[in-house]
Amino acid sequence: MSPKSPPTNPSAAETARLPLGFRAGHGACGIKANSALDLALFVSDVPACSAGVFTQNRVVGAPVKVSRTRVGRSTSRAVLMNSGNSNACTGDRGIADAQTMTATVADQLGCEPDDVLVCSTGVIGRFLPIEKITAGIPSLVESLGDSPESMTQAATAMMTTDTFCKTVSREVVINGKTVTVSGAAKGAAMIAPNMATMLSVIMTDAAISLADADRLLRLGVDPSFNCISIDGHTSTSDTVILLANGASGVSLDPETEPLLADLIQQVCTALAQMIIHDAEGADHFVTVDVSGLRTVAEARVIAKAICEGDLVKTAITGNDPNWGRIVSAAGYTGVEFEESDVSLWLNGFPLYQAGTPVPFEKATVSEAMRSGNVHIDLRFTLGEAHCRMWTSDLTAEYVRLNSDYTT
Amino acid sequence: MSPKSPPTNPSAAETARLPLGFRAGHGACGIKANSALDLALFVSDVPACSAGVFTQNRVVGAPVKVSRTRVGRSTSRAVLMNSGNSNACTGDRGIADAQTMTATVADQLGCEPDDVLVCSTGVIGRFLPIEKITAGIPSLVESLGDSPESMTQAATAMMTTDTFCKTVSREVVINGKTVTVSGAAKGAAMIAPNMATMLSVIMTDAAISLADADRLLRLGVDPSFNCISIDGHTSTSDTVILLANGASGVSLDPETEPLLADLIQQVCTALAQMIIHDAEGADHFVTVDVSGLRTVAEARVIAKAICEGDLVKTAITGNDPNWGRIVSAAGYTGVEFEESDVSLWLNGFPLYQAGTPVPFEKATVSEAMRSGNVHIDLRFTLGEAHCRMWTSDLTAEYVRLNSDYTT
Repeated sequence: MSPKSPPTNPSAAETARLPLGFRAGHGACGIKANSALDLALFVSDVPACSAGVFTQNRVVGAPVKVSRTRVGRSTSRAVLMNSGNSNACTGDRGIADAQTMTATVADQLGCEPDDVLVCSTGVIGRFLPIEKITAGIPSLVESLGDSPESMTQAATAMMTTDTFCKTVSREVVINGKTVTVSGAAKGAAMIAPNMATMLSVIMTDAAISLADADRLLRLGVDPSFNCISIDGHTSTSDTVILLANGASGVSLDPETEPLLADLIQQVCTALAQMIIHDAEGADHFVTVDVSGLRTVAEARVIAKAICEGDLVKTAITGNDPNWGRIVSAAGYTGVEFEESDVSLWLNGFPLYQAGTPVPFEKATVSEAMRSGNVHIDLRFTLGEAHCRMWTSDLTAEYVRLNSDYTT
Repeated sequence: MSPKSPPTNPSAAETARLPLGFRAGHGACGIKANSALDLALFVSDVPACSAGVFTQNRVVGAPVKVSRTRVGRSTSRAVLMNSGNSNACTGDRGIADAQTMTATVADQLGCEPDDVLVCSTGVIGRFLPIEKITAGIPSLVESLGDSPESMTQAATAMMTTDTFCKTVSREVVINGKTVTVSGAAKGAAMIAPNMATMLSVIMTDAAISLADADRLLRLGVDPSFNCISIDGHTSTSDTVILLANGASGVSLDPETEPLLADLIQQVCTALAQMIIHDAEGADHFVTVDVSGLRTVAEARVIAKAICEGDLVKTAITGNDPNWGRIVSAAGYTGVEFEESDVSLWLNGFPLYQAGTPVPFEKATVSEAMRSGNVHIDLRFTLGEAHCRMWTSDLTAEYVRLNSDYTT
């Protein structure tokens, strides 16, 4: 079975509206210099069913430890986020700080601390300036609003090295009622499958139970946030939270489920692609299709090796159709195959067929890569399983950003 | 148990003499432009016991396919190498070309084609200019000599993006007789454990049986060539060959074995360190010690993740003691631990102790990193196993070299 054609380059930024019954706020409390926005708050007016997926790193930030004990156990009212400091590798004090943050917000909103989830992103291993944060929370709560502008400002406050704010909303009309799924995300490096230094909150006004919210979130995250890699570095802070408050009057049932699941997956995919689009220093948006393997796990390990191969990425930077680096990256994954099982297309040009090089005009393929969109299509003859991942190239600018600044 | 202190920065280049009964030759047949050296030949005057270790990539060059059927089965007389083209991903024609190369050398030396091993390094996926190579072999054989200069010229002909030629010799006197182990290697990128786009030939005038040669070579390669990574890309061509011709009159026996095994390991380690020292675009030589794990395999997977983490490497490029990137790289390996099990020293400075950050003077640690030698010493409290690996940093120059040129 042939893989699907690659997507067009996602648009860099969209304006998104909040689903019914949600508000967003923003603030600048001084974690970042120069009064840059560093606090974001997403609130549901009524208790919302929540679900979360978190980093699989063994070293996790204090906010991850706090939020994962709260999410999905009962309803939630709010997600508090700060940028500029990840509150990771900060021991017991980090946990206490994360708890203080949620208690302060709960106090302002008139709910329990357990109703508030928290995420932090930024440099690892520094204590939060907790007094500045608690002092900033009242005005953060005051800023809450339900306009697209409020959503944009809150998403801006989540940014670290991001160059644009990432928000998406999608809607569907079911039995005359509009259901909206909207999301905000941040992330530009320390991005690997399972997942990334990325934070995202997905909000919907559909009514979805706790168990269903968890299931639908995982279905949405698996082919999106779990299929992007910028540098293969799984961070300590990765979090995606789904809040479903039911304000639209539409509930999940066997009839609405395909539509709602698709909507959530669409929002996750658009946000994940925006993260790749904003990859630090990147010049190319790369779609990697690996097909014809015995299992999806095999396809995935090969796609990941290609996405994370520095020699593959630097060849793309140079618009060089150096396909040997791609085929040999597949070869070092440990997946068993013979060279005669493999064929490779690059931006639609066949370069390698059943283990033998295909003569091609290098300048023509290079010109196609220069568009900024690269499609690596590696096909095996061993089965029907396939996987699609997205990555960026590796540029001197990525190196500069990550060596000149402590991020 | 505390790991050993890091080695000093290895010297960039050494002059090496050939063991008794070995000669080396060089030639420029036109694979490379501008009459650059591109053919090397190492010959034992008498049949030598041989052993080889080869890349673990599923996609391997034709010379690997040819040489691994010949090595260690009977004695060998010669190793032919070319640079500028790896003869990998070249299908049946590549195999035929590799066989033609060895047959031409065998004809000149008066031995069987099976007595000749072959290695190629350079760009993947292009057919060799086989007529140029066969035409160049007679003068290659004529150039054979036993001087250190011959060894240096042959090692120079192996180079691709290497900036200096890599030769080492070590000797020991046993019962009044001098035994020499000498080696030549090439490699500067596409370097990962198990192994690298690296070729090496190790020659000794000790008498070692086929089975013992295989065992001693693996003992030498494991903590050296299998413990270096520049970019995590296991190449299609990696080969290390050991030739032992017995010309010194010293044989392997229970008494001499520790000395000879140590000598071989010393030569492998010195050559492996030279490869890291010559890593493309690199500014830092990095020693990674990971200790206190339950098994060596655990220590190894963590050391490898640190060596291959782009965010770790770019922090080193910037002399930034950004230890969160190191600890979080350990965290995403899948090895089970708690943060309280981990402590980290960087160039002797304690930065993280049992899961809690240690206050430190950033400028002081950064200054120590500026020396160009970085020692990452990550200690766990889970067992006694440890592993030492070496890597380089990741610079804008590495990106430039690998995006501007097809290598």
